[in-house]
Amino acid sequence: MKKKIAEGRTKRVFQGDNDNELVFEFRDDYSDSPDEKKMAIKQRGVINNQVSAHLFRLLGSYNFGTHFIKETSDRTCLVKKLTMIPLVVVVRNVAAGSLVKRYGIEEGKELDCPIIEYYLKSGEPNAPLINNDHIVSFGHASADDLREIHRLALKMNIILKDFFRRRYLKLIDFRVEFGHQDEKIVLGDDLALDSFRFLDLESNEKLDRGVFNKSANEAGEALVTLKKRILLEK
Amino acid sequence: MKKKIAEGRTKRVFQGDNDNELVFEFRDDYSDSPDEKKMAIKQRGVINNQVSAHLFRLLGSYNFGTHFIKETSDRTCLVKKLTMIPLVVVVRNVAAGSLVKRYGIEEGKELDCPIIEYYLKSGEPNAPLINNDHIVSFGHASADDLREIHRLALKMNIILKDFFRRRYLKLIDFRVEFGHQDEKIVLGDDLALDSFRFLDLESNEKLDRGVFNKSANEAGEALVTLKKRILLEK
Repeated sequence: MKKKIAEGRTKRVFQGDNDNELVFEFRDDYSDSPDEKKMAIKQRGVINNQVSAHLFRLLGSYNFGTHFIKETSDRTCLVKKLTMIPLVVVVRNVAAGSLVKRYGIEEGKELDCPIIEYYLKSGEPNAPLINNDHIVSFGHASADDLREIHRLALKMNIILKDFFRRRYLKLIDFRVEFGHQDEKIVLGDDLALDSFRFLDLESNEKLDRGVFNKSANEAGEALVTLKKRILLEK
Repeated sequence: MKKKIAEGRTKRVFQGDNDNELVFEFRDDYSDSPDEKKMAIKQRGVINNQVSAHLFRLLGSYNFGTHFIKETSDRTCLVKKLTMIPLVVVVRNVAAGSLVKRYGIEEGKELDCPIIEYYLKSGEPNAPLINNDHIVSFGHASADDLREIHRLALKMNIILKDFFRRRYLKLIDFRVEFGHQDEKIVLGDDLALDSFRFLDLESNEKLDRGVFNKSANEAGEALVTLKKRILLEK
C-alpha cells in the first residue's frame, strides 16, 4: 500500500504512483472524532466516490478547473496534487447553521445574494471564520488569490445550483477547498455528499449530514436514495 | 434634560437642541453590564471627553470627515447625527485579544499589514465577526460603502499610529464606528481611551481596558497619566 498522507471523515488520502498525484479512498466508517460513536454506513464510500466524480466531471464540462483525473475503483479516485490553500470555502444560498446562530438570520431565509465565507483550516474541530485581511496578513493567500477564489466559488455555485434544481434539490450551502496548480487556482478536495446541504423540493425536508448521521441503516437508505436522484438512476 | 437616546459603557447619548445633533455625556461609572461590578473612576468621563475631542480635531486637521462639532462642557460634546452603520470596525497593527485566541497568532506579533475587522452590532455583549458578503447580503452596507470604510479605517490608522508614536505609545488596535452623513461616510461614535489598546514604549507595559478596570484609584491614576501623555500636558 502507498504512503497515507491524511485521513478525514470522508476519505483517506494516499500518495499516487506519480509524485504529483494523490489517491482518495472514500470510507464507509466515521472515525476521525474520538467523541463521536464510530459507525459504518454501508456503501457510503462508494456513493461518495461516485457522486464526487460525477460533480467534478460536471464542473470540468464547464471548463471549471479541478484536480480530478479519474475514478480508479468503486471507492477510489486519482487527483492531481495541489498546493492547498488552508481555507474551507463555504458558499451559502439559504440561511442555515452558523448563519442562523451567529447573526440571527431566520432559518431557511433565501439570501439576497450568495454569501462566501472562509474558515481557517487549523486542525481544530471548529475552524474559525476568517476575513480577507486576516488571510492576506497571515500569508495564507494573496488578495488576488482571494478575488479568484471568490469568483470561482460563485461560478461553481451557479453550475451546481442549476444542476441540483433539475433534481428537485435546492442547494442550501456547500463547502469546498481550493489549491494552486502551477499559477492557476483550481478546485481540490472532494465533492462528497457530506459537503452539501439540500432542501428536498418534493418533501420540503432538509437533507444534510444530520440525516446521514441517523442510524446506519436509515443513513444508508437516505444516501442511496439521494445518490440515485442526483445521478438520475432508476 | 433632553431625551436620552442611548447609554453605553462610556457615555450617554441625548438629543441635541437641533434635530440633527446629539449630545454625548461621558460617564465616570461603568454600569451597562449587569454581571460587572459597578465602579466609578474619578474624572473618567472628563478625561474621555477631552481625549476624544482632541483626536476628533486631530483627524479633522487632516480633512478626515467626522461627526464632531465641539465640546460643550468638561464632560459633554456636541456631534452631528449620522445614520449609523451597525458595525464595530476594529483596526489592528499588533496581534492581541481575539486574534491570539481565534487564530493562534503570537501575542504581540507585529502584523505584516494592518487588519480591519467588522463585528455586527447586535445588542448582544459578544458582537460576532462578520465578513463583507454577510454585510452586503444582510443589507447593512453596500460593497461601495465597505470599500470606503476600509479606506477610511486605514487612513485614520496611519494618522493615529503616528500621533501616538510621538508620545511613545504603540497603537496595538482600536475600535470605531462609521455612519452616513448625506452621501458621505464619516467617523461617528467616540474616541475615548476605552477604544484603544497601546503598548507603552517606555515601560513595555500594555495599556488597555484591563488596566483601567483595576481598582478605581489605580485606574483613575492610570487614566490621568495616559491623558497627560497624550495631550502633552506637564
